[in-house]
Amino acid sequence: MSDRKEFRDLATPEAARDAIAALDLAPEPETVSLSEARGRVLAERIDAAIDVPGFDRASMDGYAVRARDTFGADEADPAELDLVGAVHAGATPEVVVEPGTCAEISTGAVMPDGADAVVMVERTDELREHEAADTDDPDRIAVRTSVAPGDHVMSAGADIAAGARALGPGTRLTPREIGLLSALGVDEVPVRGRPRVGIVSTGDELVRPGEPLDPSRGEIYDVNSTTIAAGVSEAGGEPVLYPHAGDDYAQMERLLRQAADECDLVLSSGSTSASAVDVIYRVIEERGDLLLHGVAVKPGKPMLVGRLDRGGSEGTDDETESDDDAPAGSSAYIGLPGYPVSALTIFRTFVATAIREAAGQPEPAAATVEGRMGVGERYGEGRLRLMPVGLLDLAGGPAAESPAGDASLPLVYPVDKGSGATTSLVEADGVVAVDPDTEYLDAGERVTVQLFSPDVRPPTLLGVGEDDPALNRLLDRLDRPRYLPVGSREGLRRLRDGVPDVAVVAGPTDREVDSVALGGWTREWGLVVPADNPADVDGLGTLVDRDLRFVNRPTDSGLRRSLDEAVDALAAERSVPRGDLAERIDGYQRTVRAFESPVRAVAAGDADAGLGLRATAERLGCGFVSLGEQSVVVRAAPDRADRESVRALAAAIDAIGTEEDGLLDGLAGYSRNSRNEP
Amino acid sequence: MSDRKEFRDLATPEAARDAIAALDLAPEPETVSLSEARGRVLAERIDAAIDVPGFDRASMDGYAVRARDTFGADEADPAELDLVGAVHAGATPEVVVEPGTCAEISTGAVMPDGADAVVMVERTDELREHEAADTDDPDRIAVRTSVAPGDHVMSAGADIAAGARALGPGTRLTPREIGLLSALGVDEVPVRGRPRVGIVSTGDELVRPGEPLDPSRGEIYDVNSTTIAAGVSEAGGEPVLYPHAGDDYAQMERLLRQAADECDLVLSSGSTSASAVDVIYRVIEERGDLLLHGVAVKPGKPMLVGRLDRGGSEGTDDETESDDDAPAGSSAYIGLPGYPVSALTIFRTFVATAIREAAGQPEPAAATVEGRMGVGERYGEGRLRLMPVGLLDLAGGPAAESPAGDASLPLVYPVDKGSGATTSLVEADGVVAVDPDTEYLDAGERVTVQLFSPDVRPPTLLGVGEDDPALNRLLDRLDRPRYLPVGSREGLRRLRDGVPDVAVVAGPTDREVDSVALGGWTREWGLVVPADNPADVDGLGTLVDRDLRFVNRPTDSGLRRSLDEAVDALAAERSVPRGDLAERIDGYQRTVRAFESPVRAVAAGDADAGLGLRATAERLGCGFVSLGEQSVVVRAAPDRADRESVRALAAAIDAIGTEEDGLLDGLAGYSRNSRNEP
Repeated sequence: MSDRKEFRDLATPEAARDAIAALDLAPEPETVSLSEARGRVLAERIDAAIDVPGFDRASMDGYAVRARDTFGADEADPAELDLVGAVHAGATPEVVVEPGTCAEISTGAVMPDGADAVVMVERTDELREHEAADTDDPDRIAVRTSVAPGDHVMSAGADIAAGARALGPGTRLTPREIGLLSALGVDEVPVRGRPRVGIVSTGDELVRPGEPLDPSRGEIYDVNSTTIAAGVSEAGGEPVLYPHAGDDYAQMERLLRQAADECDLVLSSGSTSASAVDVIYRVIEERGDLLLHGVAVKPGKPMLVGRLDRGGSEGTDDETESDDDAPAGSSAYIGLPGYPVSALTIFRTFVATAIREAAGQPEPAAATVEGRMGVGERYGEGRLRLMPVGLLDLAGGPAAESPAGDASLPLVYPVDKGSGATTSLVEADGVVAVDPDTEYLDAGERVTVQLFSPDVRPPTLLGVGEDDPALNRLLDRLDRPRYLPVGSREGLRRLRDGVPDVAVVAGPTDREVDSVALGGWTREWGLVVPADNPADVDGLGTLVDRDLRFVNRPTDSGLRRSLDEAVDALAAERSVPRGDLAERIDGYQRTVRAFESPVRAVAAGDADAGLGLRATAERLGCGFVSLGEQSVVVRAAPDRADRESVRALAAAIDAIGTEEDGLLDGLAGYSRNSRNEP
Repeated sequence: MSDRKEFRDLATPEAARDAIAALDLAPEPETVSLSEARGRVLAERIDAAIDVPGFDRASMDGYAVRARDTFGADEADPAELDLVGAVHAGATPEVVVEPGTCAEISTGAVMPDGADAVVMVERTDELREHEAADTDDPDRIAVRTSVAPGDHVMSAGADIAAGARALGPGTRLTPREIGLLSALGVDEVPVRGRPRVGIVSTGDELVRPGEPLDPSRGEIYDVNSTTIAAGVSEAGGEPVLYPHAGDDYAQMERLLRQAADECDLVLSSGSTSASAVDVIYRVIEERGDLLLHGVAVKPGKPMLVGRLDRGGSEGTDDETESDDDAPAGSSAYIGLPGYPVSALTIFRTFVATAIREAAGQPEPAAATVEGRMGVGERYGEGRLRLMPVGLLDLAGGPAAESPAGDASLPLVYPVDKGSGATTSLVEADGVVAVDPDTEYLDAGERVTVQLFSPDVRPPTLLGVGEDDPALNRLLDRLDRPRYLPVGSREGLRRLRDGVPDVAVVAGPTDREVDSVALGGWTREWGLVVPADNPADVDGLGTLVDRDLRFVNRPTDSGLRRSLDEAVDALAAERSVPRGDLAERIDGYQRTVRAFESPVRAVAAGDADAGLGLRATAERLGCGFVSLGEQSVVVRAAPDRADRESVRALAAAIDAIGTEEDGLLDGLAGYSRNSRNEP
């Protein structure tokens, strides 16, 4: 791999941008029907081919007259004109308005020959020669106002005339432009093509969503292909997903060259393995042109930029494409990092812009928001840091009342679970670009957040703490909440540090954090066992005394705290050291993440007992040995308690147990706690 | 029509909103594939059905070890472990890590039994028993660091565990949510249905774009149907266009009832004629429920809100629908005003919100912008005024340098051509809601603009003045310009009043306006005649002396000013009063809108001569009798001359006539003016 040496120095982010900008992604313009044109961008100027309106058009209901015949007329001294007929919208006039006459006319109708103005019907009276025959059409019209030539007439071409510039190239077609094009009779329009973007994902372990997964083989669902495909669509491109490639050179080469033939840009993504990257690297080197390998940015260091030669897919299984059709030249190629948040970050920062540019789509204004740091954060990588961050929309609270100051800006906090967690995708809302020279961002400092999508809307409520099925239902009733199930203990710590609005705390706690209790509920917890309790577990003692496999929860969870108290009590009862007792429970250290996880292990036969809730045990068809009840309390940060979203949460908690509520329906072992008795 | 009396008092806008909010537009949820899910809104909560990852997963390339075996190891005193095999991503481990051993492992691979941590490859050395055989696999690994259980391992469910809440109901699906759903293996999702919105347009005069138009019958293209259909799509609904209905009761009833059966909401729009409105009114009264007729808002007073009974389309030509399928209940109905800008305004203000609500889509943040009035405007209608306004983005200029103050806000100016002009659709960017009590908005006052679409981006340059083919090309080279071809004279007036950046002035002018000349060009003008000049026109005198039909331009245009000067000169030469001379030209008062219009009249045989440019005459295959040259000068408002967009325009003008430019290529009679010789 000595040929990589030329890229030993990482490229600057600017050089990466320049290299990508130099790639030609722009496809040929195409013609689409007007009904499909919304959101597309005009490829060329559209001039009006016809006059609009195409005729002198009455713009009021009334009478078409010769203006001269009305000169001097007023309420006291109306002009009387012979009524010679009527003209309706959508009909050819069959009358001529001679001096001293008029014709009834409807809005939108063609002005009859001779007439040059319209008198509004409200300024006229019908006159009849025979008073009795008042159902007949009138013979004469009294005009009680004078009009000038052109009054209430839109002359031909007055809206837009044939030959006039209607819409310029680069115009994005929104409903109103579609309206103007309709007025011009245009039913198909030349628009900028959407760049075709091929997505090749690598890694033997990847499986498409919907297909069966074998975790024992280390299979995982492919996240990057679908995420990036959606990002390509959003940026105005047309994504093309290719089948997965393993780490095999021949297969990878065939796929990349097929994608190059069919697409304007090829993205590879998905693999975190060095060998897959090596294979791609070799294909680009041998069958294309590698422009850049490695960028001084975190994440994204291993980013590749290059070109892939076209005309390479003749030798594939698909022989239907003749040589004549083989596209010339090369397609652009960009290799994205493997972790989902990193891939989306690099896509968002470097690639989406290039696709938008090629599609003629401007960056939406909503794609970037200002915020202020909720915590201080230290840096020291010496390269551009694209820091994933979550946002909290603080509008709708006392803090927002200060006039347009920083206090009303969304709160920004770093989100970095590392290790390729896919949940970071939805726990972060975008990235903050932190300059290599920046060593520290202070709490309160103003930052610009590039949202992962212009459609991302920051949550209005941020909660942290215990996971709980009743809480999940409660969250469903709120508008745009975000909840991070970090456990009761960690939840309280974060509440103290000032970012979240609320923490949800279950069971006993040794942390004292200044907060306002919003109320809560009580849940029954204990040991979950297989249906009908085949091992006759009757309490913690059974686990200590018998050889049963147990599954626990982490020490951060409220369930675990209650369990530890029960272990303490049993140790005291038996007068043995607590540690000895715990040591004798097989699996006491085997902790799993979520409240359902131990129950699922029991249900799957992977354990004989697990720590859990009666509600979960019943839902998943397991047996349950009660060890007690614990309260779940929702605590708000004191300075957030009056925010609209927190008040909405408090109101939802207050309603628990009322007649129409039903939050706890079907949750066995759950009961209400009022706000005053948490 | 006495039954309309109950609605004699106009409803308040709030009552109209309440009435619309009370209509039930929300369709049933539906299931869509993940690849189609972008932009849709989750109908219910999605909990994780699987653990992600589904296994304990190595998060680094390195060696899987028992952590205990590494305790105490460091650079000076490495732990040596027997290498027993390798595990790759996507493969089932075939080794067990017993005490004192390790296995090579790739990122993403399944942790083999026995191992509980990974040592990064960078902290290890390969050891070989036989030094010579360095191509063989090593036998032992030196571990130069100690690791704790779980280090560089993502345990099963650590990202998200089965049973955990993944995404809440109401979540809008952007690329990142699609990523998380992929990780969970979800390939189809329950989403909020898109309300089906039927659009019935009325008026015998309406023709669908793309079909032939007969202006002599007063036909015009249907603008509202396509505009509103695009607006419905944008708001998250699914538009259904119905064939045009005339003003016939039976036909209208059939259409409306068919639409009610098939849609959640029916909109009628298009007609400005009172009779069509009457017909709709009767159908709703007899076959539905009229909730509201008339709202105290301008435009939009005649708005109708009601319900249409379903089950009404059995008697139609389409008998394929059985009675069993006939939907029960009623669909919602809203009648929009007829003028395009009014229809879009009322749609935007009252209807789009209801469709978004039914679709579960929040109003995009980009749909509203703050601005400041560029001119003062007086009101006095006593009802809510939804004032169509244009915007000018003043960013990128000296004014924008003040820190986030009002000076950097877009300039807002009223646009109201009235009379149903479709060009107002693209000359206005949105509406400002002016309270009934507001009598005056001052220049500089801050206002909120509801954009016609979240995709609307305000122009960066606003020009007014003469229309000209070279100018049209010049505008194509700029980014988001807006140009209003109001004529030279009116252009100068508007420049003086302070809204536009530039005015384009052709020929002589009697207005002195403080401005900066950016340069321009010269164009040859004269009389356009049929090809080969059959009437032997040799100048203005021919028009005066012979019975020829002439077509003129309005007095605001620079061409007309030059013509009037030529008439003056001829009058002086012949020693006759100017008025007499003009009077003797048949059609001197017959003015048409755009620079091509007189030429088109000549080309169509509707005139014997017209006022125009040599370039236009040549392009449309007409003859041309030159009367002179006139300069076209682009003048900037002094306080705008340094704005980025104005400097870009000046640079483009400076480049005219340079080697690579080509702006004037093929424009007969055009030549360059430098900035210094306007």
